[in-house]
Amino acid sequence: MVLPAGATIGILGGGQLGRMLASAATGLGFDVHIYCPDADCPAGRVAARLWQHGYDDTAALADFARACDVVTVEFENVPVAAADAVISAGTPFHPGPKALAVAQDRATEKKFLQSCGIECAPWVTVDSLDDLASAHRELGPDAILKTRRDGYDGKGQVRLSANSDLSAAWDDVGNHPCVLEGFVPFELEISAIVARRADGAFAGWSPSLNIHETGILRRSVTPAPVDQSVRDDARDLAIRLASALDYVGVLALELFVLPGGDLLANEFAPRVHNSGHWTPEACATGQFETHIRAIAGWPLGDTARLFNAEMVNLLGDEALIDPIELRDGVSLTLYGKREARPGRKMGHTVRRLGPAGD
Amino acid sequence: MVLPAGATIGILGGGQLGRMLASAATGLGFDVHIYCPDADCPAGRVAARLWQHGYDDTAALADFARACDVVTVEFENVPVAAADAVISAGTPFHPGPKALAVAQDRATEKKFLQSCGIECAPWVTVDSLDDLASAHRELGPDAILKTRRDGYDGKGQVRLSANSDLSAAWDDVGNHPCVLEGFVPFELEISAIVARRADGAFAGWSPSLNIHETGILRRSVTPAPVDQSVRDDARDLAIRLASALDYVGVLALELFVLPGGDLLANEFAPRVHNSGHWTPEACATGQFETHIRAIAGWPLGDTARLFNAEMVNLLGDEALIDPIELRDGVSLTLYGKREARPGRKMGHTVRRLGPAGD
Repeated sequence: MVLPAGATIGILGGGQLGRMLASAATGLGFDVHIYCPDADCPAGRVAARLWQHGYDDTAALADFARACDVVTVEFENVPVAAADAVISAGTPFHPGPKALAVAQDRATEKKFLQSCGIECAPWVTVDSLDDLASAHRELGPDAILKTRRDGYDGKGQVRLSANSDLSAAWDDVGNHPCVLEGFVPFELEISAIVARRADGAFAGWSPSLNIHETGILRRSVTPAPVDQSVRDDARDLAIRLASALDYVGVLALELFVLPGGDLLANEFAPRVHNSGHWTPEACATGQFETHIRAIAGWPLGDTARLFNAEMVNLLGDEALIDPIELRDGVSLTLYGKREARPGRKMGHTVRRLGPAGD
Repeated sequence: MVLPAGATIGILGGGQLGRMLASAATGLGFDVHIYCPDADCPAGRVAARLWQHGYDDTAALADFARACDVVTVEFENVPVAAADAVISAGTPFHPGPKALAVAQDRATEKKFLQSCGIECAPWVTVDSLDDLASAHRELGPDAILKTRRDGYDGKGQVRLSANSDLSAAWDDVGNHPCVLEGFVPFELEISAIVARRADGAFAGWSPSLNIHETGILRRSVTPAPVDQSVRDDARDLAIRLASALDYVGVLALELFVLPGGDLLANEFAPRVHNSGHWTPEACATGQFETHIRAIAGWPLGDTARLFNAEMVNLLGDEALIDPIELRDGVSLTLYGKREARPGRKMGHTVRRLGPAGD
């Protein structure tokens, strides 16, 4: 399918990723409809139409889908039933329910990654306190307990060590089904972002180094300070994953780099990704426009990097500096969120580090 | 005045310039309201709200103005009464009624330019067929008759030569008040685009060479193939004009380059300009974001050029190539216009010509 210019692109979700996707789509002449339960969502204010309904309102979802020529998502926790409602209405839906279903459950995700030959840190499913005790004996003492569903930005995670109170940890994750991941002595974390079109055409960007604080991405630096062979491996793994999912759109694979350069998958996001926010400024075509091009069946565009870059997230009231005084070579994006809660992603800066190169 | 993040910016006009201004503003976290009589205008589909009313509806204009923290324009032929309605409502309005009034009348414009020491081609006002005959004897035989008001993209213009039928020419311009401009043997046409903030701070971009076809801008190439001293002169003239107008925002000054490098002003636009459409891709900060920063009282940002560039307008059905196959190094913007009338500006491409330099 190739969308004509002027077609309508629907996006499930109204946050900053939807806002930046919408702006990229309108730059290519598309109309954008946003579907989001929140009347004042950031993406709704830059779109031709906001459909303000719940993700469980299958009738509204069907109407929305019929008003759109293609539908995509800006967050991976869209209920699969919502995706099914879009598809039942006859509208193409990317990245598709399979990628969502796999990404929504950490156990399913890890099994799928491993089935593609993409290695993960050692892990076990945990459905009870007994399971947790047994898993901790097997993988511990240093390990991390993560809910299988609905975790993001460090939420739904508890770190364990030799003296941890397992019962308290199990309560901290709400007694929800979990996975326990064994500690891996990684040197750094990188992410590979690639785009795939339905016909198998690929595009991608050089992996970035990602630095987290309290579970939230704080900075991404590109190129990541690893050998070119490691960057190539990371990109190859992301392409392998996207192929296995028969994926259409942009996908991000987060990876641990071990001493020696071996890679272990952490998780993937079936969508544009925070660690790719440097791409619109630093590359001929960024992740948002490329995602739109991929789901529209358009040529993916030129993703060549124009300069090395550092992306820094603005969290909470960091974005309220009024107005932000930027040094030369720094660009600013703000998301239009009304409330600057602590740790909330409010915007980001992209800084030129020098000409594109190692 | 410094606008806080999240403030609302109003734009009079709903075309592609409004659309690109709106996208730039939302990238900085602002809300945008568009005021335009057309329900399906390109800018209205990327804004938080469209006020669909006529430019003569002073009550609606006042309501619109009160909903906005600052109001700007995307075309210079906004009725001055509409600007006055905004200002009467107490909302800051940039670039302000003086710049609009000067730009809306070619005779007033030329007088103002000359009062700033900016030279123009020889010209005379023409209010009747007798005036035209007298002016043609004075400035002709090669000359160009232009309506004083409402001309754009070559409309309202008639070229005259030795054998021209002056009566037919006077009818062609609708017997409207005109200026006659004497022919100037210029080598090429360039434009200097600058931004000025209320406190007098300036930013600008290297002038581009502009190539027209049938009165419509077809291509802009930056840097213009003229000596650096000519580029500096062009920029200085634009800054002088902006200062004299006490201007806030982006302004474009079109100039003829004579053999030897002397400059004559053609006209200026009190707004972002087609010949600056290469700036968002090729520069750290483009003309749209810089205009928003200027009217918001924000730091103007870094306008450094990252690469030399060629901008090509897509006219009429050139934008219907479906989808446009782009070579590497070419980016595409489409405006979301529903109807591809011949000669209508539907989009543009920006091509990288190589690293920034002469």
